[in-house]
Amino acid sequence: MTHPIRSLDDLSAGMAWDLGTLTLSLEEVVAFASRYDPQYFHLDPEAAKESIFGELVVSGLHTLSAVFGRLMGSGLLSGISLGGNQIDTKWPAPLRPGEEIAIRTEVVEVRPSRSGRALGIAKLRHTARRTADNVIVLDAVGTHFLKR
Amino acid sequence: MTHPIRSLDDLSAGMAWDLGTLTLSLEEVVAFASRYDPQYFHLDPEAAKESIFGELVVSGLHTLSAVFGRLMGSGLLSGISLGGNQIDTKWPAPLRPGEEIAIRTEVVEVRPSRSGRALGIAKLRHTARRTADNVIVLDAVGTHFLKR
Repeated sequence: MTHPIRSLDDLSAGMAWDLGTLTLSLEEVVAFASRYDPQYFHLDPEAAKESIFGELVVSGLHTLSAVFGRLMGSGLLSGISLGGNQIDTKWPAPLRPGEEIAIRTEVVEVRPSRSGRALGIAKLRHTARRTADNVIVLDAVGTHFLKR
Repeated sequence: MTHPIRSLDDLSAGMAWDLGTLTLSLEEVVAFASRYDPQYFHLDPEAAKESIFGELVVSGLHTLSAVFGRLMGSGLLSGISLGGNQIDTKWPAPLRPGEEIAIRTEVVEVRPSRSGRALGIAKLRHTARRTADNVIVLDAVGTHFLKR
């Protein structure tokens, strides 16, 4: 369990947390894609050979969701997270089932509410990096409402 | 089944497709959030009353994934979708389990590849609107690689 942050005021740009590693299995990848991103290059290893990836790859929405699940499951923001209203997501490189990724969250910007309410906005960058070759496969900047 | 698009060249800015409606049940919402967004306001109807939402709301990642699942499941892009590398997502208002949403995709921009390859990039806006009050709960602009 990551040590929980107690207030938006404890955050400043550049702070970062390593949130461990995870691997998505072929079975999970196919199950997620069947429901949320049914495209042949996420579903069928044989057919995926004809795709521009040349093989089956993880749905980017699955990578994003798994990283977010790790963040929220880590407890880092449990005491202060009030929700969010935006996330800008890039997938610079593909991820294959079975490849381990390392997950990291860093603070991009912190803005206390100007209305004096006991909350504020933090922009947090969430990344996933393939541990085998250090290539970033997910780079997502979320707008989080956090308690002060 | 929506009539499939045959080529990037058949797309132009402003074209739009209504992709039907869907509703996420409380059971689905809790199952998704348990794995991918474990926060009390997505998991526990009683505890969620203390959140800024005042009630349990759908994880924004779940809304995004469900809308994307509908898009890809509709067949609209089945013949031409090669993947994507970016999606910028906003959740302007909350969505509750059991609330019906109407899903729509529209073309924002089309850019054939300058290298002369038989593909190009289209920016597509995917929205979900609560049918009861017409409020937009998801507004996501994706960068899609599509065949020509």
